[in-house]
Amino acid sequence: VERPVVTFLSDFGHSDEFVGVCHGVIARRCPQARVIDISHGVARHDVQAGALLLKAALPYVPAGVHLAIVDPGVGVPDTSPGTAARRAVALAPAAREHVLVGPDNGLLWLAAAELGGVREAVDVGHSRERLEPVSATFHGRDIFAPVAAALACGKTLADVGEPVRTDDLTRLELPQAYERDGGLCARVLQADAFGNLTLSATQEQLAALGPRVGGDLEVRSAATSGSATEAFAVRRASTFGEVAPGELVLHEDSRRLLALAVNGASAASLLRVRPGDEVILRVP
Amino acid sequence: VERPVVTFLSDFGHSDEFVGVCHGVIARRCPQARVIDISHGVARHDVQAGALLLKAALPYVPAGVHLAIVDPGVGVPDTSPGTAARRAVALAPAAREHVLVGPDNGLLWLAAAELGGVREAVDVGHSRERLEPVSATFHGRDIFAPVAAALACGKTLADVGEPVRTDDLTRLELPQAYERDGGLCARVLQADAFGNLTLSATQEQLAALGPRVGGDLEVRSAATSGSATEAFAVRRASTFGEVAPGELVLHEDSRRLLALAVNGASAASLLRVRPGDEVILRVP
Amino acid sequence: VERPVVTFLSDFGHSDEFVGVCHGVIARRCPQARVIDISHGVARHDVQAGALLLKAALPYVPAGVHLAIVDPGVGVPDTSPGTAARRAVALAPAAREHVLVGPDNGLLWLAAAELGGVREAVDVGHSRERLEPVSATFHGRDIFAPVAAALACGKTLADVGEPVRTDDLTRLELPQAYERDGGLCARVLQADAFGNLTLSATQEQLAALGPRVGGDLEVRSAATSGSATEAFAVRRASTFGEVAPGELVLHEDSRRLLALAVNGASAASLLRVRPGDEVILRVP
Repeated sequence: VERPVVTFLSDFGHSDEFVGVCHGVIARRCPQARVIDISHGVARHDVQAGALLLKAALPYVPAGVHLAIVDPGVGVPDTSPGTAARRAVALAPAAREHVLVGPDNGLLWLAAAELGGVREAVDVGHSRERLEPVSATFHGRDIFAPVAAALACGKTLADVGEPVRTDDLTRLELPQAYERDGGLCARVLQADAFGNLTLSATQEQLAALGPRVGGDLEVRSAATSGSATEAFAVRRASTFGEVAPGELVLHEDSRRLLALAVNGASAASLLRVRPGDEVILRVP
Repeated sequence: VERPVVTFLSDFGHSDEFVGVCHGVIARRCPQARVIDISHGVARHDVQAGALLLKAALPYVPAGVHLAIVDPGVGVPDTSPGTAARRAVALAPAAREHVLVGPDNGLLWLAAAELGGVREAVDVGHSRERLEPVSATFHGRDIFAPVAAALACGKTLADVGEPVRTDDLTRLELPQAYERDGGLCARVLQADAFGNLTLSATQEQLAALGPRVGGDLEVRSAATSGSATEAFAVRRASTFGEVAPGELVLHEDSRRLLALAVNGASAASLLRVRPGDEVILRVP
Repeated sequence: VERPVVTFLSDFGHSDEFVGVCHGVIARRCPQARVIDISHGVARHDVQAGALLLKAALPYVPAGVHLAIVDPGVGVPDTSPGTAARRAVALAPAAREHVLVGPDNGLLWLAAAELGGVREAVDVGHSRERLEPVSATFHGRDIFAPVAAALACGKTLADVGEPVRTDDLTRLELPQAYERDGGLCARVLQADAFGNLTLSATQEQLAALGPRVGGDLEVRSAATSGSATEAFAVRRASTFGEVAPGELVLHEDSRRLLALAVNGASAASLLRVRPGDEVILRVP
């Protein structure tokens, strides 16, 4: 490849030099690589949000090395009592033109599944590509970026790490929707900047609820205690543009996931829910 | 062109994957294109702010394809009662080395005028370049980015859309300043991150107010009701650096527009005005 | 060099077109240059924070032209009474493959020292590379970016400015820690987005405090008045991962500077201090 691609996702934000320094390391180690930033605005330490975002972006970016860093476990030493240090890994998925690099904490799991599952894995925590001395807290700069650069410039997995059994990799299990009180109880997986809520429910589970796909529903934020909750009418539609301003709609979002949105406003604010909360959908 | 340029402006922000995914689509469709991000921090759905920003940036970026997406009308289906769906367009301005791509909602209008007016226009809503299936809400990814990439890689307007009469394009009319109560009543067009306020008034209108260009003025935020408003002394100067800290200054900003600023502080906070509000300038 | 590198740091933020316009100017003047953004999230007008960030990033980015703009003095005219306008400069450090471009306000000082000190300096305020007409407030676009582009494309310092005595350059003196009340009184140099606090103290000064490197300390935010302050226990460790969640740790951060952090929380919030404040470290 004349200009190999490295995509880059993290929770580093844009107020410090962290993103720029990783770009610098890649440019020094593999000058011909082209880096495409997917996002650095993942909520800090939110591995599930990062995993969902990476999976959503993958089908639209070029083949190459995908560097992803959301890493609450960095800085936990190997010798920490009662806590195993998280591994740093590079994964070769079934789709051979892709490689994934990042912490082994579930962040890469959905992307690997999207690419056909993991074919080969190596631990890069002690890679010969590391920048010495390796800092305790910035493995993006000292381990992940140089390993990603080496892979972009033609090194193999065997060149940059030690083999790991693919069965030993950390998985990410998304919460599943389930029936409760005659409704479908789903978890809020994510809220985007506009307050749109992605749910852990499928079109198939939804179809099982009522007779018609286009029929109206009712949504309640799930009571964690026994206290009463408010019910909201929700339209099923193909987009929020089909409902009146201020109306709540259940649609398939641009990631092809079920999502709650409000035309011109924030569903998160209306329903007063956050990622991790549950909502119950039912036919009224 | 060996490395065609695509500039990219949107209101997508940086917390989701939206910007990165559009970069990915362009890199897949036209790998040799170089994407220059103008800004993705336009206030959400603020078409006028996006149009002003695009116009301000254009004289300083290379010739190429200018992709701009601030699109409150996305997701409104063609069949929506009482509402026509907004068109997706590509525009060839008089300046032949440029092309503009985006929603036909006025966003591209000021830039097109800056480039000599629209010479040719096509509707790209059903372009053969689209990513199928086209989502209801993310036309940046599914329509605008692939069309921009195709144009960057040498396709013509006729290749990517259906002809549109240029007279049918949506215009953007900026508010004009006018005389009121012996002063010049201007609209706040925009506030930047530092609280500097761009006004809808020209140097010529200002000159008509008083005998000398350098003379002091008074500014009032316009009362929308009959209630009294506060008056502030304002210096005319070539920059806020010429006045004392905390002093209010009327100057020509880096976009060559009249603007109110405070040396070391926020004019928006001092005057308690926002974009869309009116201020009255008068000789005290 | 086939693709010369320009790194770019500023306090422009991402909500306006400022960063994109500078990229555009560089792409027009030196199309083969590759721009690597270090960060544009430096706290507005915080020259010391920008200088520290630039110094921290430099060892990790490729050789090239380093463009840095944190410029509270822009817009102060040459003729301003009692205030000399700050110079715009380009500096050649001892490390010959690097050049620094920016305002002469101390921003480039730590980076220049990191690169072996300044070998040659020119004033570029009236460079023939400037974009005319030069605006009063956006020298990034009109002076610094075009000068950086010219240097990236092979111009020499003598080509783009007038010689300046290196002794006349504005220095940046970081506050030094000193002994007070039997403890080490250090200034908070910076707080990152996560509330980690960089201190103006060295490992050597710290070692002088107590018998063992790993021993515990006590930290007080320094009272500016005579009022009592709270004391916090602080662990010395190589990273926050070695202490329990919520515990305060003194470690060497990824920039190799002494820093206070809290495992999983914000040291800035816990200690209620900000950059510029003092803290006292002592053996309890």
